[in-house]
Amino acid sequence: MTDVLAPAAAPTAEGRFRAAKAASVRLATATTLQKDRGLEAIAAALLARSAEVVAANARDLEAARAAGMAAGLVDRLSLDERRVARLADAVLAVAQLPDPVGGVVRGGALANGLQLTQVRVPFGVVGAIYEARPNVTVDIAALALKSGNAVVLRGGTAAQHSNEALVAVLQDALAEAGLPADAVQTIDEFGRDGAAELMRARGLVDVLVPRGSAGLIQAVVEQSKVPVIETGAGVVHIVLDASADEAMATGIVLNAKTQRVGVCNAVETLLVHADAAERLLPPVLGALTAAGVTVHADDRTRRVVDGLEAATDEDWAAEYGSMDLAVGVVDDLDAAIAHIARWSTHHTESIVTADLASAERFLAEVDSAVVMVNASTRFTDGGEFGFGAEVGISTQKLHARGPMGLSELTSTKWLVRGTGQTRP
Amino acid sequence: MTDVLAPAAAPTAEGRFRAAKAASVRLATATTLQKDRGLEAIAAALLARSAEVVAANARDLEAARAAGMAAGLVDRLSLDERRVARLADAVLAVAQLPDPVGGVVRGGALANGLQLTQVRVPFGVVGAIYEARPNVTVDIAALALKSGNAVVLRGGTAAQHSNEALVAVLQDALAEAGLPADAVQTIDEFGRDGAAELMRARGLVDVLVPRGSAGLIQAVVEQSKVPVIETGAGVVHIVLDASADEAMATGIVLNAKTQRVGVCNAVETLLVHADAAERLLPPVLGALTAAGVTVHADDRTRRVVDGLEAATDEDWAAEYGSMDLAVGVVDDLDAAIAHIARWSTHHTESIVTADLASAERFLAEVDSAVVMVNASTRFTDGGEFGFGAEVGISTQKLHARGPMGLSELTSTKWLVRGTGQTRP
Repeated sequence: MTDVLAPAAAPTAEGRFRAAKAASVRLATATTLQKDRGLEAIAAALLARSAEVVAANARDLEAARAAGMAAGLVDRLSLDERRVARLADAVLAVAQLPDPVGGVVRGGALANGLQLTQVRVPFGVVGAIYEARPNVTVDIAALALKSGNAVVLRGGTAAQHSNEALVAVLQDALAEAGLPADAVQTIDEFGRDGAAELMRARGLVDVLVPRGSAGLIQAVVEQSKVPVIETGAGVVHIVLDASADEAMATGIVLNAKTQRVGVCNAVETLLVHADAAERLLPPVLGALTAAGVTVHADDRTRRVVDGLEAATDEDWAAEYGSMDLAVGVVDDLDAAIAHIARWSTHHTESIVTADLASAERFLAEVDSAVVMVNASTRFTDGGEFGFGAEVGISTQKLHARGPMGLSELTSTKWLVRGTGQTRP
Repeated sequence: MTDVLAPAAAPTAEGRFRAAKAASVRLATATTLQKDRGLEAIAAALLARSAEVVAANARDLEAARAAGMAAGLVDRLSLDERRVARLADAVLAVAQLPDPVGGVVRGGALANGLQLTQVRVPFGVVGAIYEARPNVTVDIAALALKSGNAVVLRGGTAAQHSNEALVAVLQDALAEAGLPADAVQTIDEFGRDGAAELMRARGLVDVLVPRGSAGLIQAVVEQSKVPVIETGAGVVHIVLDASADEAMATGIVLNAKTQRVGVCNAVETLLVHADAAERLLPPVLGALTAAGVTVHADDRTRRVVDGLEAATDEDWAAEYGSMDLAVGVVDDLDAAIAHIARWSTHHTESIVTADLASAERFLAEVDSAVVMVNASTRFTDGGEFGFGAEVGISTQKLHARGPMGLSELTSTKWLVRGTGQTRP
């Protein structure tokens, strides 16, 4: 006789991974229409249960303030009815995107008549590790679901109540739409042990995407046994070539530094060709300073423009994320490319030039995810690239490089159709 | 005053990685013609210096025999003039393949006039860890060079002298052809420490490809901080559906098991639909037994065919690599797919069927690198797929899945060409 009063087995992180894996099998063969209905149900449920989510968020906010969390972080943790409504809109926008699953990558017939087709398939289970920003919970879940993946979410412990409320809303909406509720899992309640287990869950979790600070991403890259897509850090360079037009140079540098601060595609280091230093440094640095930018300059720059702070090696390595910019003068394009090779995080670099040979050399020789000629580095962005949504910007070379859209959340599989062929 | 008599710094594994990295920068912008000239120089040098390579190999063979190495392994370690000539031919064949570098993956113009082009670029430095097979040294080096990559090779210590002689030949030939000799590096002399350093060389080595036994691959996957492309193990299944034609079933199973033994795309488990068991098991197993295959069968199979060995769970998990086959009867297609989900290494699975719905369900629901209908599993091969060469068969989902050709040894980079665009 079953004892109905026996306590249920305590939930475990591994139990959540297994539930996600089982759900991923069903999700992998769901049609685009079924997945879009699921996303629409999620958006509707977020609006309908907004008060519940905001109440859970209030618990997190209270604890965060009591713990003395910095105001900026508290703001990123905060949800109100308006922010929840924006999350619902974002989910509906994902539903509108093309479904990458089933897309044919390549194919053809072999001499023996075998028909080969390489098609996009979901990874299966996508893991995400991020900081206490509950909007990321909804964002990543929507992108994963649209691309046919189940998702295991490890947000910051400081957002645990918000994340649990959001995941409950998402799970209920999926079930209502006839999709497996287990396709979205949160493991915040298991704390650091849960994160460590997620990084060891090779075989249950197919890929791990860390999002957040450089320190968080580095820790995941170092510790994970699950394959990781490294996103992130941007020590981004702009080079002003000898032939750069002054107005174009000023416009691009100003835009790349000040249009939005604290983003990974903002410029952090400006390198100026020695032959153009006296012509370009005064107007370009003048415009930057007028806009409130603090310039950290090498000696050669300071010989041209007075009153600048001296740059050290720390400045060349810095991803300021603020209204600061490192500026140096280089002998030539070789020296600029060598500086970038040494200090760049290989995210985005741009050259301003009127010289064809310089442009083509820069494009060919700079080894970064995105290499630009005469454009602001702020364009490195999934939305700007026309992907409709952005999973992150990959700074690794394996699988995905640069802005990642939905198709970067898929793998492929070869389908082979025969009529009894055997190998001679 | 420099002391010219001071000893040179002792070589280190890290020194080799750095040398490869520096060479990779030059190799990345080499033209196809330059790389092909380099490969032709390597082929010529292998023929010209064949005696030197065979002599170095003799030292390894002597040590291997003294250490009691098994005959099969000694054979794989052996080089003679004929085998060296075959290696030279293989290098020339790689020179004939299309160069993936510079190939345009996708692109277009944005509304603001920015021109986007995603192009294939080399990874940079490819690491390889493999067992004492000196032919792999030449094979991997040629594929890496053709795709514009430098390569760091860690073969088995038992092949150290052979590998060093081969790498010396390759380096000299590269220099002669005007390419950086440092593009090919061996670290066998540093033993296990060298392999461990290679697995930690994130930032210097861009991707690591292990080749060899399941144990070696597993160890690399577990320990490496450098991104790994997992190749490998094949617990490969064939399903005979209720509607399978007897002659086609017999031909495919016999071919997949016996055409070549010990390869990863050979079938290891046969699953037969219960409705076809009495019709198909006697002729199919009869043909296999006549060909010398030992059948390990479940109880339902043994009720149909007498005198078979009983299968255990070990048989379902086995990659025999021999003339052995596990055979089971399943209730239906669901049970076959469930068995595969549990026991497969997700390399290749094939169904023999005349039923359209079964074929489409199998293609959609089986989550393996290659999924086939009415074809021998032996076709999962870069050569058969028309790639011209094979780096390995990836059983992971990130970056590459299934047979890998030269394009799987490349990453991509986004080129953005503008006329001064800034972000509004």
